[in-house]
Amino acid sequence: MKDINKVVLAYSGGLDTSVIAKWLEDTYQCDVVTFTADLGQGEEVEPARAKAEALGIKEIYIDDLREEFVRDFVFPMFRANTVYEGEYLLGTSIARPLIAKRLVEIANETGADAIAHGATGKGNDQVRFELGAYALKPGIQVIAPWRDWDLSSRESLLDYCHKHDIPVETQKGKSPYSMDANLLHISYEGGLLEDPWAEPEEDMWRWSVAPEQAPDTPTYLELDYLKGDIVAIDGQAMTPAEVLTFLNKVGGANGIGRTDIVENRYVGMKSRGCYETPGGTIILRAHRAIESITLDREVAHLKDELMPRYAKLIYNGYWWSPERKIMQDMIDTSQLHVNGKVRLKLYKGSVIVVGRQSVESLFDQAIATFEDDAGAYDQADAAGFIKLNALRLRIAANKGRKLL
Amino acid sequence: MKDINKVVLAYSGGLDTSVIAKWLEDTYQCDVVTFTADLGQGEEVEPARAKAEALGIKEIYIDDLREEFVRDFVFPMFRANTVYEGEYLLGTSIARPLIAKRLVEIANETGADAIAHGATGKGNDQVRFELGAYALKPGIQVIAPWRDWDLSSRESLLDYCHKHDIPVETQKGKSPYSMDANLLHISYEGGLLEDPWAEPEEDMWRWSVAPEQAPDTPTYLELDYLKGDIVAIDGQAMTPAEVLTFLNKVGGANGIGRTDIVENRYVGMKSRGCYETPGGTIILRAHRAIESITLDREVAHLKDELMPRYAKLIYNGYWWSPERKIMQDMIDTSQLHVNGKVRLKLYKGSVIVVGRQSVESLFDQAIATFEDDAGAYDQADAAGFIKLNALRLRIAANKGRKLL
Amino acid sequence: MKDINKVVLAYSGGLDTSVIAKWLEDTYQCDVVTFTADLGQGEEVEPARAKAEALGIKEIYIDDLREEFVRDFVFPMFRANTVYEGEYLLGTSIARPLIAKRLVEIANETGADAIAHGATGKGNDQVRFELGAYALKPGIQVIAPWRDWDLSSRESLLDYCHKHDIPVETQKGKSPYSMDANLLHISYEGGLLEDPWAEPEEDMWRWSVAPEQAPDTPTYLELDYLKGDIVAIDGQAMTPAEVLTFLNKVGGANGIGRTDIVENRYVGMKSRGCYETPGGTIILRAHRAIESITLDREVAHLKDELMPRYAKLIYNGYWWSPERKIMQDMIDTSQLHVNGKVRLKLYKGSVIVVGRQSVESLFDQAIATFEDDAGAYDQADAAGFIKLNALRLRIAANKGRKLL
Amino acid sequence: MKDINKVVLAYSGGLDTSVIAKWLEDTYQCDVVTFTADLGQGEEVEPARAKAEALGIKEIYIDDLREEFVRDFVFPMFRANTVYEGEYLLGTSIARPLIAKRLVEIANETGADAIAHGATGKGNDQVRFELGAYALKPGIQVIAPWRDWDLSSRESLLDYCHKHDIPVETQKGKSPYSMDANLLHISYEGGLLEDPWAEPEEDMWRWSVAPEQAPDTPTYLELDYLKGDIVAIDGQAMTPAEVLTFLNKVGGANGIGRTDIVENRYVGMKSRGCYETPGGTIILRAHRAIESITLDREVAHLKDELMPRYAKLIYNGYWWSPERKIMQDMIDTSQLHVNGKVRLKLYKGSVIVVGRQSVESLFDQAIATFEDDAGAYDQADAAGFIKLNALRLRIAANKGRKLL
Repeated sequence: MKDINKVVLAYSGGLDTSVIAKWLEDTYQCDVVTFTADLGQGEEVEPARAKAEALGIKEIYIDDLREEFVRDFVFPMFRANTVYEGEYLLGTSIARPLIAKRLVEIANETGADAIAHGATGKGNDQVRFELGAYALKPGIQVIAPWRDWDLSSRESLLDYCHKHDIPVETQKGKSPYSMDANLLHISYEGGLLEDPWAEPEEDMWRWSVAPEQAPDTPTYLELDYLKGDIVAIDGQAMTPAEVLTFLNKVGGANGIGRTDIVENRYVGMKSRGCYETPGGTIILRAHRAIESITLDREVAHLKDELMPRYAKLIYNGYWWSPERKIMQDMIDTSQLHVNGKVRLKLYKGSVIVVGRQSVESLFDQAIATFEDDAGAYDQADAAGFIKLNALRLRIAANKGRKLL
Repeated sequence: MKDINKVVLAYSGGLDTSVIAKWLEDTYQCDVVTFTADLGQGEEVEPARAKAEALGIKEIYIDDLREEFVRDFVFPMFRANTVYEGEYLLGTSIARPLIAKRLVEIANETGADAIAHGATGKGNDQVRFELGAYALKPGIQVIAPWRDWDLSSRESLLDYCHKHDIPVETQKGKSPYSMDANLLHISYEGGLLEDPWAEPEEDMWRWSVAPEQAPDTPTYLELDYLKGDIVAIDGQAMTPAEVLTFLNKVGGANGIGRTDIVENRYVGMKSRGCYETPGGTIILRAHRAIESITLDREVAHLKDELMPRYAKLIYNGYWWSPERKIMQDMIDTSQLHVNGKVRLKLYKGSVIVVGRQSVESLFDQAIATFEDDAGAYDQADAAGFIKLNALRLRIAANKGRKLL
Repeated sequence: MKDINKVVLAYSGGLDTSVIAKWLEDTYQCDVVTFTADLGQGEEVEPARAKAEALGIKEIYIDDLREEFVRDFVFPMFRANTVYEGEYLLGTSIARPLIAKRLVEIANETGADAIAHGATGKGNDQVRFELGAYALKPGIQVIAPWRDWDLSSRESLLDYCHKHDIPVETQKGKSPYSMDANLLHISYEGGLLEDPWAEPEEDMWRWSVAPEQAPDTPTYLELDYLKGDIVAIDGQAMTPAEVLTFLNKVGGANGIGRTDIVENRYVGMKSRGCYETPGGTIILRAHRAIESITLDREVAHLKDELMPRYAKLIYNGYWWSPERKIMQDMIDTSQLHVNGKVRLKLYKGSVIVVGRQSVESLFDQAIATFEDDAGAYDQADAAGFIKLNALRLRIAANKGRKLL
Repeated sequence: MKDINKVVLAYSGGLDTSVIAKWLEDTYQCDVVTFTADLGQGEEVEPARAKAEALGIKEIYIDDLREEFVRDFVFPMFRANTVYEGEYLLGTSIARPLIAKRLVEIANETGADAIAHGATGKGNDQVRFELGAYALKPGIQVIAPWRDWDLSSRESLLDYCHKHDIPVETQKGKSPYSMDANLLHISYEGGLLEDPWAEPEEDMWRWSVAPEQAPDTPTYLELDYLKGDIVAIDGQAMTPAEVLTFLNKVGGANGIGRTDIVENRYVGMKSRGCYETPGGTIILRAHRAIESITLDREVAHLKDELMPRYAKLIYNGYWWSPERKIMQDMIDTSQLHVNGKVRLKLYKGSVIVVGRQSVESLFDQAIATFEDDAGAYDQADAAGFIKLNALRLRIAANKGRKLL
């Protein structure tokens, strides 16, 4: 048993983390500090205060982190067009390093020597919380009750509540899914999704209408970019969190952003997850569009080749690592000229790019044109270009190497 | 002036390549062999025979290459989940190496010492045709009239026709776009698309209905996979070309597969293109789904990291190269266990994966479950896993390295 | 405590693994099977039989694995020019998967349900043994006594020997270093090497003379290659193990193959190691030389870019993994034409390539020559080649992008 | 014929560029500005002034660029441990972008509209000069006489000299090799080297003694690093050019830095080259040594995986490109903590690292030790680490996947 004086708990106000708060006090005879963050999950965070107080917690932190979340985590990530395994927009993954950072900051402020979280021992989140905490405060103790305690069944958990006077609200209509939400997405796991052949029921989805229910007329948007980030929509300046909030709303209303995948967890298993990421889906597509006219070809290709690796870093919990930092450096430098405007059409689940423009555009109509280009490009150059690129292939063929 | 005896011309039967046929005879005083391929472009190829005969051509090749195209080019490419610059499914790029191969084969059969094509000096296609030809027959001569002649305006071309009795059909309703089509896609360039801010007009699109016009009820499909390729749809065995033909039809009817991008050409400029790739869009998404349960995580990640490079090879014209061959080898080996079934829902432009199953599935419900797993996974292992993965980060932090 | 019936122990015959044999019997009340391999470590393996018998072992395996080791592990690895962190030739790493494979095979033959090894909990070897065993026999139990027992000091170990009548030989002149040897290398860790600033004493090195002591006249060698592997030296056909044995001898005599590095272990720490790899050092350099004339440029570059990743796989213990297999596939395919001859000069620590030739050479003197090439290469092609490669840079500069 | 008013010529003072100067005046009726740089090639540059004056040149630039060369080009390159194709230290490649930059600067200062160089149409240098010039001044004209004129034989060149009164010095003992030298290296191509099987004669080498002739006692050096660059040797502060000059001298005296390779040129052919790079060889090995204790593992591995690509950029002439810039950014950021000291032993051709130390060292003796570590590392953590890393392999094996 570790010797703990004070522990900062990532506290949602729900049953599980309420039990954990009590269990920590009991088990370690230590003070518990609760930390509840508004990351845009769509639930009030203030009720968590009353619940924590009811548990006898003395130090209660409730923070609105929405702007920091989007500005310092979501936007930097999208600068790389980041997608994990071709499909997943990393909605949960990208929130964890911010929570880890705040847990450590609060530990420093309150003199706590430990942090605790309610993630299970099978998932990625434990890794993300703990790698972040260790990287930022190497001497910190970490308590992950789900890995340690013997309250593994629902029944034993409720028993524990009874014994310790923890109020259990009747949860009528409780979702059968394990969910996580923040401004970037809402996710669903477990329940019938554990069969990868089963189609999710329509009433599982919460943030988006079905494409079938979306409006019959498309919605057009104009996004303004500055250094790779959206700074205004339809001419109206917005903060990062405002941008994402707005795009979630309009995206969700148009049936955009549902994904249903089997992904590979860092801890070694495959797992089925469904995600709604309306704003993120729009941002990804639009960002590629503004880059398509403002980014040099080889820079774009280098980014594309490194992206899967960068996505994996974030998925696996290495946001707070030197390798992520130097990659971010490169990515951010690449965005210096990613300025301009993208026009989108949203319609029944689709995000369609219909225009892009920039004073920094590298698209050169005079050269690209099928019409007469007045000598801007000398077609004869192409013959030499091809000849030298073919040279190694011709030499090999002449030496008898076969490609068929 | 090169000394040419006989030249094999990639001949569409259209005005441009008809002029080229005549120009080649005149300019080089050589025999011309025409080669016309059915790659699924949706136009009859037989009329090209009469047109070639009218031009006095003696050796006329007309080949139906649809099965070979899909089996040996399209399917192998999709095994890698190949996308160029995040958006383009390489519909034109992947057809060129097959045409290059046939041009060389026909040159060998007819004793020709040269090939010719109608691609311009600004595009990628010249590169793809010529690299392929040089790689397969290093001593071949290549003639690209658009780079050489002085018929650069429409007017001078028509003049040439008049002088040489080449029939010019009145082309009412001719598309203002430069188009290319084969079983994988149809593409549009030029015209108003030369302004990247301009939205294409609805009547440009030919293969798909607008999502707005698509049916109000979704279409469900079940795809059967063998070694990464689709071999049956809804229980019915199909050849590769039948698969793609079918998916184009049902995809197009559901408004699937439109893309509008600015891409980076190998010859150094950016260009705007619009594409309809209904079947390819479905194949890409479904292939990721069957891989998601049958492929090892690290194999999947390795494929993802190499994919942009493989896509670039194909885009740039290096299908016939030793580096593409060794990559293909690796990709094909990775597909040995990519067998099983994917269930899709198509709806107004969206391809939604709703189920995947396989007797070779690596998804292990017993381990992944949120319920009691009867000891299949020991959560305590995660603590050590995280501790050692964090070790280098903790040492660095202890030595004073900062990540914030 | 796991329930074990029979365990296969990787047994060296030394004190540690003798103690382990006894401890396994005591602790698990199980049968112990010993397995001792000749991997070319330079010590007799037969004495291990008598020692095992003295411990009362009933099932004793002693295998000469030298040919298999070089043929199926060392040579395939060198086809990729594999080096970990720019310096380490993976001498220990590449032997572990073979031992893991034999442990599993013997477990299958003897009906054992567990394997055991003498590697510590701090090193890479535990990972390599265990990942291999789990990959080849997923239900196997693994016992790593150094992670479990309380015999952590030398004294407690000797006590244990006294209590259990395990003979302890007086080890006069025992090396102060922790060593590992096989046909590919001998390694040294620990002792004064734990200070990375300390130069190793000359008498530490065992396989090579100091360059200072090497002969004053160079040694020349001619190596014959078939598909990337050496098959003859100075005209004399040799088996893989004979090749490596010979090169170790002549390399060591010429002072070749010493390395002194700080490396990054998979378990998260840095460690200092010194290595003698005479034959491997020669093979690496010579293999690059034969590839330099027989491999296509882009194939060579692709191999170079993937090599660090392949090296890391082997270092981290993932030889027996699907990702290593598909990479090996690609690497082996690349070697089809790597045939020919390399001439080397060995002198006082240096391996100098002085000639390479091949009937499959892609070096084309007629084109490469500084003299008149009779039109084999048209220098004018270079202008177009450069112009198109520069196009994107010129467009960017014209748009005001700065590179300075 | 281009219309040229004034051209800046990269002028060595030798016969070839003297002829070019005259030929440019004659052919284009334009003014010629000569530019001669001291890059440490070991020849006086002032004599070039008199020769240029004798040719009637009015504007003569002679610059000592040695410090800029090492500080802004050589050192940044070595921060990435850059090697092309496993062997070549890029001595010529890295000098070209500096010359291109100065040509453009001088063109801007003198109002010239063109630059010219004496590189042939078969080599890499034309590409490097011209890509650099186009990237920095997109409207510049480039003249490469060797691609254009008809003076392709030695004889016709001498004829031209006679006709135009260009003094031809009798070049007794002229090397039969084509050579290039700067502070980083001297290279040899052509002559008997065009046969890759031929060993170069001993008297070809100019900068290093043969290992056989090197001193019998080793030389020890201590190098001080700041942010990845050497700033002092044996306690004495030095500028970048002083560092390289010193290391060339002591390295050459110890027989260090000879390489004999066949490399792949960007223009598509293989070519044989021999190089002496004494200082560079020392810097490369020592830099890896200081990084080995100061760089995070994953940062080091990321650098290793990107290095071949970075090397290729430089080799191919893309120093002045946005992709090189963003990679440099990442590389430079990685060097922030690469501070400390490396101790080397130089002996008869070998560079041996014998010590490394740093106040920023990440080597943690307390953890790495084979002795008792007082709990700094919990060996039990390794079991969980291995178990979870093995999970995907075990699941696959359980499902019947074979690795053998």
